[in-house]
Amino acid sequence: MTSPALTATFALACELISRPSVTPEDSGCLELIASRLAPLGFRFERIDTGGVCNLWARRGDTAPILCFAGHTDVVPTGPLDAWDSNPFQPTVRDGHLHGRGAADMKTSLAAFVTAIEGFVAGHPDHQGSIALLLTSDEEGIASHGTVKVVEALAARGERLDYCVVGEPTSVKTLGDTIKNGRRGSLSGTLRVKGVQGHVAYPQLARNPIHEFAPALAELATIRWDEGNEFFPPTTWQVSNIHAGTGANNVIPGECEVLFNFRFASVSSADQLKQRTHAVLDRHGLDYMLDWHLSGKPFLTGRGELVAALTDAIRNIAGVETELSTSGGTSDGRFIADICNEVVEFGPVNATIHKVNECVAVDAIEPLSKIYEYTLRALLAAKRD
Amino acid sequence: MTSPALTATFALACELISRPSVTPEDSGCLELIASRLAPLGFRFERIDTGGVCNLWARRGDTAPILCFAGHTDVVPTGPLDAWDSNPFQPTVRDGHLHGRGAADMKTSLAAFVTAIEGFVAGHPDHQGSIALLLTSDEEGIASHGTVKVVEALAARGERLDYCVVGEPTSVKTLGDTIKNGRRGSLSGTLRVKGVQGHVAYPQLARNPIHEFAPALAELATIRWDEGNEFFPPTTWQVSNIHAGTGANNVIPGECEVLFNFRFASVSSADQLKQRTHAVLDRHGLDYMLDWHLSGKPFLTGRGELVAALTDAIRNIAGVETELSTSGGTSDGRFIADICNEVVEFGPVNATIHKVNECVAVDAIEPLSKIYEYTLRALLAAKRD
Ligand SMILES: [Zn+2]
Ligand SMILES: [Zn+2]
Repeated sequence: MTSPALTATFALACELISRPSVTPEDSGCLELIASRLAPLGFRFERIDTGGVCNLWARRGDTAPILCFAGHTDVVPTGPLDAWDSNPFQPTVRDGHLHGRGAADMKTSLAAFVTAIEGFVAGHPDHQGSIALLLTSDEEGIASHGTVKVVEALAARGERLDYCVVGEPTSVKTLGDTIKNGRRGSLSGTLRVKGVQGHVAYPQLARNPIHEFAPALAELATIRWDEGNEFFPPTTWQVSNIHAGTGANNVIPGECEVLFNFRFASVSSADQLKQRTHAVLDRHGLDYMLDWHLSGKPFLTGRGELVAALTDAIRNIAGVETELSTSGGTSDGRFIADICNEVVEFGPVNATIHKVNECVAVDAIEPLSKIYEYTLRALLAAKRD
Repeated sequence: MTSPALTATFALACELISRPSVTPEDSGCLELIASRLAPLGFRFERIDTGGVCNLWARRGDTAPILCFAGHTDVVPTGPLDAWDSNPFQPTVRDGHLHGRGAADMKTSLAAFVTAIEGFVAGHPDHQGSIALLLTSDEEGIASHGTVKVVEALAARGERLDYCVVGEPTSVKTLGDTIKNGRRGSLSGTLRVKGVQGHVAYPQLARNPIHEFAPALAELATIRWDEGNEFFPPTTWQVSNIHAGTGANNVIPGECEVLFNFRFASVSSADQLKQRTHAVLDRHGLDYMLDWHLSGKPFLTGRGELVAALTDAIRNIAGVETELSTSGGTSDGRFIADICNEVVEFGPVNATIHKVNECVAVDAIEPLSKIYEYTLRALLAAKRD
């Protein structure tokens, strides 16, 4: 094995980890990345807003556009003494590079840069365009990050053809899993109204807990859809239910319920809303219901990007990759608005958001090579 | 109408209202009452415990025993400036005697005393015994009041034959309603266990809200019994339900539910418990359930006491009284343990526990006369 310090990707990953960019701080990571891409002829646009640093970079003017997307911010470290080494001093131990952001996702950022460097060196006149979409607000509330860049691109009619998000999707070994979609997340805050009263006189009250019970039982057993090849069926879960102030002799006047759909792309948010209202209405409930769509689902079928990335992983890492749509939401939900093919791929995610976050040293250079292979597969042909 | 200040009952009611006996204080009320009964040959027993003053007084050694029961404590006044006159300075206004306790239940106590005085003057050798059971802890938690006197009497095998509790049971006019029973109150604290998890992975969790929903829907619609001539059907009400800590992406691990039965004497607490457990068990729930029986039901049928009191009300007040078992719990629940016939009767309750509590002046003397008529009906015959 090559001495790790000698690979460009390892070195850049260490430089990025050294910057304590706890969300929504960028700590100069975007500057560092831009300084590497500037000599390659990239054009840069900073779309900073609300204290968040966002970078849009592009090389080339034509389609197709292959974009690498990611974030420079990291989650907080928690108590430092729980770490075996300083989370912002990249340290190799037991064959792993340790540090906050090593897996999520500074190694991916470094691999983006070195992959692009390698590809451009060999194909200075590649077809289409290479782009980078980076933000310092993915781990936080994510309201001023990728979504703002996507809005800016959409406003001027700029679309992407392929996007690789560098999230750590591998489970046991580099390349075993890529995400070709994510379920949507739709939340509801429901207030079922009753009439408060004394438990000794229920005929003068209307108990919202009792009135809601059969609707709740029905909602909990509905099969919302069957999912599809890529998605499990849509699920509905109540996360909170609250009624009553503690006194055991008062029938409460209201029952508040928070629930959440995780939904496959076979159901739309509007369909789920309508079906929920239909159940509540059929049970004759007096209620208020506020909806919050925190993420639309997205799905990328077996098109050119999946084929290129799957092929790259097979050739570089010798692994047959699996397509998955499990887990929470990611910035892919925003990018899918302006891009037909969005896939997430990055290092093993076993240690993300934990103490002693790390990435296998011998997986760092292959990650760069996989990204570079993908660039070649999609953009190597000369321009017409 | 006689000038109110000239009737003995009015004067004694004013003396009692002047004593600010906010629960569990007695403020000398029991002493005042005992000083009136002592010349009549009553024997007294103070059963004070836990800061509560209790008095047991009896005239005579034989059966039957007719007992008058009540409380000297009053609920707090709330802000004094909300009152039109000082709640502890009895004041006549618009034909009503105002003051805290005027209706609940110092006028009843005064009427007990003057009724007994009048009866004993006319029937010094009455049959059976007259008793008084008074406490300063009815409006509070009631754990050291009447229940303790009842326990002491039960411990020595002393039972009552008839008991009139002086609670304000009249609704619109003196005598229109007496209570010949009260429903029982049985509470449950239920904890339904699930397995906490992330809403994105419901297959790894078990949602206790979802699992409880069908059992809740069933319990809310059960017809527990049909009641009887005197009682409405038993009711079951959830007063509180709580699960979740606010986060909308977490399936909670537990759901806590507080519920309460108000039950007719046709169902027993044990039957209701068994039926509740049967529903929870049939739904396969993992749960813990703690029970609290805060009041057993009691019921007094149309026996001698109801007949005597109904007759007294008809003759003195010219009113056909209605039997009722509605409302919350009262000390009758304790007395019923040692007495087959317990009835509650007192002034109009429209203002109890409110500001400007009052009793109609022209209802005060009739109340005493009704109690005295009842004494005559049950105890006037000379001893054998
Ligand atoms: Zn990430
Ligand atoms: Zn009372």
